[in-house]
Amino acid sequence: MYYRLLIDCQDRKGLVYKISKVLFEEGFNIENQQEFVDRENQKFFFRAVIEGEVNRETLLEKLKRELGEECNIRLVRDRKKRLFLMATKEAHGLGDILIKWFSGDLPVEILGVVANRENLRELVEKFGIPFYYIPAEGKSRVEHEKEMLEVIAPTNPDYIILAKFMRILTPYFVEKFPNRIINIHHSFLPAFIGANPYKQAYERGVKIIGATAHFVNNNLDDGPIIEQDVIRVNHQMSWQEMRNLGRDIEKVVLGRAIKLVIEDRVFIYGNKTIIL
Amino acid sequence: MYYRLLIDCQDRKGLVYKISKVLFEEGFNIENQQEFVDRENQKFFFRAVIEGEVNRETLLEKLKRELGEECNIRLVRDRKKRLFLMATKEAHGLGDILIKWFSGDLPVEILGVVANRENLRELVEKFGIPFYYIPAEGKSRVEHEKEMLEVIAPTNPDYIILAKFMRILTPYFVEKFPNRIINIHHSFLPAFIGANPYKQAYERGVKIIGATAHFVNNNLDDGPIIEQDVIRVNHQMSWQEMRNLGRDIEKVVLGRAIKLVIEDRVFIYGNKTIIL
Amino acid sequence: MYYRLLIDCQDRKGLVYKISKVLFEEGFNIENQQEFVDRENQKFFFRAVIEGEVNRETLLEKLKRELGEECNIRLVRDRKKRLFLMATKEAHGLGDILIKWFSGDLPVEILGVVANRENLRELVEKFGIPFYYIPAEGKSRVEHEKEMLEVIAPTNPDYIILAKFMRILTPYFVEKFPNRIINIHHSFLPAFIGANPYKQAYERGVKIIGATAHFVNNNLDDGPIIEQDVIRVNHQMSWQEMRNLGRDIEKVVLGRAIKLVIEDRVFIYGNKTIIL
Amino acid sequence: MYYRLLIDCQDRKGLVYKISKVLFEEGFNIENQQEFVDRENQKFFFRAVIEGEVNRETLLEKLKRELGEECNIRLVRDRKKRLFLMATKEAHGLGDILIKWFSGDLPVEILGVVANRENLRELVEKFGIPFYYIPAEGKSRVEHEKEMLEVIAPTNPDYIILAKFMRILTPYFVEKFPNRIINIHHSFLPAFIGANPYKQAYERGVKIIGATAHFVNNNLDDGPIIEQDVIRVNHQMSWQEMRNLGRDIEKVVLGRAIKLVIEDRVFIYGNKTIIL
Repeated sequence: MYYRLLIDCQDRKGLVYKISKVLFEEGFNIENQQEFVDRENQKFFFRAVIEGEVNRETLLEKLKRELGEECNIRLVRDRKKRLFLMATKEAHGLGDILIKWFSGDLPVEILGVVANRENLRELVEKFGIPFYYIPAEGKSRVEHEKEMLEVIAPTNPDYIILAKFMRILTPYFVEKFPNRIINIHHSFLPAFIGANPYKQAYERGVKIIGATAHFVNNNLDDGPIIEQDVIRVNHQMSWQEMRNLGRDIEKVVLGRAIKLVIEDRVFIYGNKTIIL
Repeated sequence: MYYRLLIDCQDRKGLVYKISKVLFEEGFNIENQQEFVDRENQKFFFRAVIEGEVNRETLLEKLKRELGEECNIRLVRDRKKRLFLMATKEAHGLGDILIKWFSGDLPVEILGVVANRENLRELVEKFGIPFYYIPAEGKSRVEHEKEMLEVIAPTNPDYIILAKFMRILTPYFVEKFPNRIINIHHSFLPAFIGANPYKQAYERGVKIIGATAHFVNNNLDDGPIIEQDVIRVNHQMSWQEMRNLGRDIEKVVLGRAIKLVIEDRVFIYGNKTIIL
Repeated sequence: MYYRLLIDCQDRKGLVYKISKVLFEEGFNIENQQEFVDRENQKFFFRAVIEGEVNRETLLEKLKRELGEECNIRLVRDRKKRLFLMATKEAHGLGDILIKWFSGDLPVEILGVVANRENLRELVEKFGIPFYYIPAEGKSRVEHEKEMLEVIAPTNPDYIILAKFMRILTPYFVEKFPNRIINIHHSFLPAFIGANPYKQAYERGVKIIGATAHFVNNNLDDGPIIEQDVIRVNHQMSWQEMRNLGRDIEKVVLGRAIKLVIEDRVFIYGNKTIIL
Repeated sequence: MYYRLLIDCQDRKGLVYKISKVLFEEGFNIENQQEFVDRENQKFFFRAVIEGEVNRETLLEKLKRELGEECNIRLVRDRKKRLFLMATKEAHGLGDILIKWFSGDLPVEILGVVANRENLRELVEKFGIPFYYIPAEGKSRVEHEKEMLEVIAPTNPDYIILAKFMRILTPYFVEKFPNRIINIHHSFLPAFIGANPYKQAYERGVKIIGATAHFVNNNLDDGPIIEQDVIRVNHQMSWQEMRNLGRDIEKVVLGRAIKLVIEDRVFIYGNKTIIL
């Protein structure tokens, strides 16, 4: 049985020694171990893939005893993470997830797709995934979110993926899923926050555009960044051409971010991510 | 009506003048014009998007009169190109084309998919596209190709896209579609020609891997290169992880190459491409 | 004799025809020609490298007659551009220019270096280039600039290169050299405008950092962008490590921007650059 | 006092535990620790920066006792590495090292430069570094190498940096400095091994070129790769333009490789590098 052991802690001498002592004494194989110390804030992060017969409670208790109560210790069984997807009308991010999932390249469960437009229904239903069309027109933001929550919450997702969901979520929604909502923003953040970043990029005359996958918090496009990538553009491209070119970057960046998250590689610390 | 005017020619003084004179006198709007002269070989390439009421024959004749018989002049109406796809068992390249086509991001007709494995049938048929399973077992290469040609040839494709078709085509097949077969090779050519380039890359310990879209000719992985891109890797990755990471690059590179080709931007000259 | 013919103009039918007619009739060889039309603003840009015996006045007059008075036509003789450099204390940008210049990779004249710290004197004087130390302490911005202008202005530079000059120039200075001052900013603009962008990037937790070469106008870090490039970073890097890594990007981006500018490839239009 | 503890070993259970136990018991602060296990070959690599009062012998002995004799354990004091540079006639790689060294960005000692052309003498001597011009004409390879060794060997360098030294070293020379000679090859290896890779790249029509820093062994351009990077090119560039553009990549890649090596981050294993 494979487990992921995830620890974050105030740094002090001997943490690796104490962790590895417990793992050694309990007879685990360590398949992969990485640690990182943020010197500035004296903060310790640890991730290991361990293999063996685990008595979960015993191991956690032993670790707690060695490391002290203030350490945050998680022991995660290697299982398919459960994703709920939110979208509006663009197919590229959503379609990429569907293809990867269908072909076995993305080991997750897809619980459903909710969208505030209906045009993606046909695509989603091709793959046998429930599609919920919940228009926003004539509703307050929170009313709209409440309707979406009615379909999302009962499925108990590990993560909610905003695959080009083009509305801003309110704190009401965000606080239901702390550090569990991932958005793809179609710019190299913090450049071009907000609406139509390709148009902003075109108008600013940048020579490179990008995309950013980040956790959603209550400040627009300001959550911890998981992954980014870029592509060169030039003066010959209209902003629509930049958008079309950028879509490939968006889906690739979102895909890489999802992979990191479902492998439990991403620690959030302050407004940053540590990726082990 | 929009047309693409494509000219390649031995270079000499006044070509641009003569071409633009004809276009001006005929009253065309030139939406986009690019030319390139290969100094080394004194070779001239020209592409323009022109708009206006064309009498095709008249225009071609006038251009021929001005430029001389040795110039290669094409006047291409802006219409959806017709693609036939070939694949084996991997879904990422094929799936990306299907999603782009379905969502309108790739303005082509997809005539069908032929594959030497059957596992992609379900995916392809979801999109209402004919899928032809033609196994290669127990057949000579040419016999297998003949069977595939029986389904491909009647559809009269502009281009054949090898979306991870994992067999080598013989001259018998290639010569039927000169400069019209596009392959995606999963390495940064000319590094790692041939089988399992990710394993080759892993074993060589490179720090960057890539993908190459190229026209297919009779030398393995040696046709004119249309597009390439790369991604960083490191010693922590197994070759399977490199392959998974590389798949995103493959599909993006293939997608960009298809876009260039269907917009008639790619001139082949010797073993190279000129992209206007 | 080689010349660069640079034209920008309101777009209309037949511009390329008229230009190429003049060049053809005057018997020029066109070594390289590129044009671009900004459809949105109906603006035409043209650059050609032409070779032949030019009677400058005649050619310009003929072009003016064909194109009309409102076109901006320049005929630039291929000669070494004259650069004046400004720096503060970091050696990487300045050193890179000096090495390229000394080894013949950068065909320019370097007229001098002015700096508001003295530590670069030794490096600059090794290369036999005048170094002017003009401290800013106890002076108003404009007073300081006036002193610098006293050494710069008499040398009559084509371009002023800010090779990590860490002070903000006032309109008083900038207006003396419109579109002739080039700065390297150590971030991927418009992200992280202003002071210490590496620290800003570190604190925001971005996964990629960059550098931007741009013309200086009167808004901080907001002039037309000439060139940009980026490099991946990760959570393990302190901001000082990002800065060290970024220095390579800064100097490479600045070097590419200088090359584009001295080859007269950069048209400024609004707040953007067209690069032909 | 800072030390780097470097260990490579056949992998087995408990290695991290045993190492961290010794470090904990001896009271070291661990500033940075990374380990990697090559699963395929069951090989363990470990690097830590440790701080404290070290009795070198005691620590090494304790570690040996815990880990067993077959482990390769090194304890390296943090001191400036000693580099000897070899070049031919191009200034960019050499110049970049000189500027970084002179400005304090590269904490090394530069013992001297040997070259088989004389034109770099002026640049090198500007920086007060001994320059040895040792022409190869009329000598066998080994004779030439013997002459170079006469100036290099007495300086006892940690590493020899081939900053565009355009001759092939024989086993006679290479074996004197096993895993201590670093070359920059001006292509994205393994593409374009051997002479004039930019010309090869131009002729093959690739869309991206690169550079590779690698250890030198007895097979041409086939030693373990330390670092690589790339840049996009297009059909408009001559091979000379590719070369000029590539020079920036060469020097940046070489600089990054030198930095990794002098920080003792590079383990060689088979024909690959592990970078911790």
